[in-house]
Amino acid sequence: MKQMKSLITGGAGFIGSHVARHCLEAGHEVLVLDDLSGGFEDHIPEGATFIKGSITDHKLLADLFNQYKFDYVYHLAAYAAEGLSHFIRRFNYTNNLIGSVNLINEAVKHKVKCFAFTSSIAVYGPGQVPMREDMTPLPEDPYGVAKYAVELDLKAAHEMFGLNYVVFRPHNVYGENQNIGDKYRNVIGIFMNQIMQDKPLTIFGDGTQTRAFSYIDDVAIPIARSVSMPEAYNQVFNIGADTPYTVKELAEVVGKHFGASPKINYLAARKEVQHAYSDHSKAHEVFGTEDSVSLDAGIQKMASWAEKVGARKSQEFEQVEVRENMPEGW
Amino acid sequence: MKQMKSLITGGAGFIGSHVARHCLEAGHEVLVLDDLSGGFEDHIPEGATFIKGSITDHKLLADLFNQYKFDYVYHLAAYAAEGLSHFIRRFNYTNNLIGSVNLINEAVKHKVKCFAFTSSIAVYGPGQVPMREDMTPLPEDPYGVAKYAVELDLKAAHEMFGLNYVVFRPHNVYGENQNIGDKYRNVIGIFMNQIMQDKPLTIFGDGTQTRAFSYIDDVAIPIARSVSMPEAYNQVFNIGADTPYTVKELAEVVGKHFGASPKINYLAARKEVQHAYSDHSKAHEVFGTEDSVSLDAGIQKMASWAEKVGARKSQEFEQVEVRENMPEGW
Repeated sequence: MKQMKSLITGGAGFIGSHVARHCLEAGHEVLVLDDLSGGFEDHIPEGATFIKGSITDHKLLADLFNQYKFDYVYHLAAYAAEGLSHFIRRFNYTNNLIGSVNLINEAVKHKVKCFAFTSSIAVYGPGQVPMREDMTPLPEDPYGVAKYAVELDLKAAHEMFGLNYVVFRPHNVYGENQNIGDKYRNVIGIFMNQIMQDKPLTIFGDGTQTRAFSYIDDVAIPIARSVSMPEAYNQVFNIGADTPYTVKELAEVVGKHFGASPKINYLAARKEVQHAYSDHSKAHEVFGTEDSVSLDAGIQKMASWAEKVGARKSQEFEQVEVRENMPEGW
Repeated sequence: MKQMKSLITGGAGFIGSHVARHCLEAGHEVLVLDDLSGGFEDHIPEGATFIKGSITDHKLLADLFNQYKFDYVYHLAAYAAEGLSHFIRRFNYTNNLIGSVNLINEAVKHKVKCFAFTSSIAVYGPGQVPMREDMTPLPEDPYGVAKYAVELDLKAAHEMFGLNYVVFRPHNVYGENQNIGDKYRNVIGIFMNQIMQDKPLTIFGDGTQTRAFSYIDDVAIPIARSVSMPEAYNQVFNIGADTPYTVKELAEVVGKHFGASPKINYLAARKEVQHAYSDHSKAHEVFGTEDSVSLDAGIQKMASWAEKVGARKSQEFEQVEVRENMPEGW
């Protein structure tokens, strides 16, 4: 059997590095493209070829597609800070939309067999729970708008050029290789980083907002498999865990696995949805993803890893475009 | 009364130059920003200040907003070739979305009173006729996706920062100052340019597709007025003519006003909707736009103008990104 060649953008990042590993295990030849803005070179699995560069560099993409003739594209590169996206509009759309259409252009020209794209539940917007793939998205922040625009653009590219795609809308993913130093996103990583620095855990609002936190394997495995499953082509899938927890409950579970009873610092509520959970019956049917990893088991795995790698210094995002109304505590 | 300062992007272009004129007539101080990629300096009305530059140049925008402290922004700069947008994805999103969010950033920072944005019926997508503002858009090409993304982004900016906006979705606008040399868009301009060069009129498909062609005044006047009408704020309006005509009927009307019986060259159908017409009851109510200019009267005005200025040489669009499946005859 011919060895499949896969491009994995964002392959040094959190979800991307796991997808890269699963692709290598499935026998693909893997090229990771990552600008290391949020990822780490030592997260790239052994056996992958690494090119440092950005999806916004369309000339680099043209060269790579010419050279490698990829069968599959897994597009996971993104700047995924939803809450921050109001304040970094240009940066958000440049990285999350222009970068994506650069890849779509090349995928069309080089007739790749399938383009897997990691979108987000941010496309749904508020008030649509449980989120189902047959709902019409109505994103309410620039991050969700960019993700939805890419979904629509992929559909247009399929209809005009026959490009096959699979869209995934994961939510609240956590696990090993997460950038726990990113203070703008991923509450679990933020909590762990705060605990390891003996800082109080910061919660926006009263902590009763709920999310169904998804362990990385429950997301990365179906993404990795999707490109060779024609029954998944040209469809959208919610993926992730089914059970919602409050952010306060989450703080307790995280604390437990570090043997700590962390203090909580309640900050003013941010503009965010109170409850967000998805219906995954479509993914369960196509990918057989019913048996998701429990929060307790997933946090235990991530906590062991986090204790090994230690706390990370948080950095300011330096390209803020608009400072009006930014939440306190960032 | 304080004189209002208005920025008009694309003010050397077709709709923009008319909006600029109406703003000047209403007593605004007008600054036109245009990169002259589709506009003409001699279309800018007397009395307006002209800056040659692009909305993709965010540093230039920051300077202009600092210097002029605009009350209103009329954002009409766009590369509006819907059919071509499949083949120029990056160019489309860079000009139509990134440029727009550069403006939104500055409008937020400088607290402009209202941001009028010219979207398009392209946001609706196929099969939704008559198009009504309460339908959920589902654009099917990169141009429509970019316009819809800007609409959603403006809504997000309103909710986060209080920026007031008015969105217009015009359709098939024609009239004086149209770039009749643009062979990729605007069938009326294309027909006039072909007639004046004794060329056959090109029709994609059998010419039975219908459009409600809108004379420029029916569109530019409500846009110009909207920013000082709080009852229009933070809403979306279809604007334009109510009566649909087939493209074949249009060819006859255009021919009549040039005293010609043009030949028609039928080309393979493009991917486009067969029937597109909008419900304008919302605009009629708020702007009193019921009495639109008839096709016959509008074509007569435009034909007199076109005969004065003469045919324009059509140019190839030079930055095509993907050539697969481009329609013949372009």
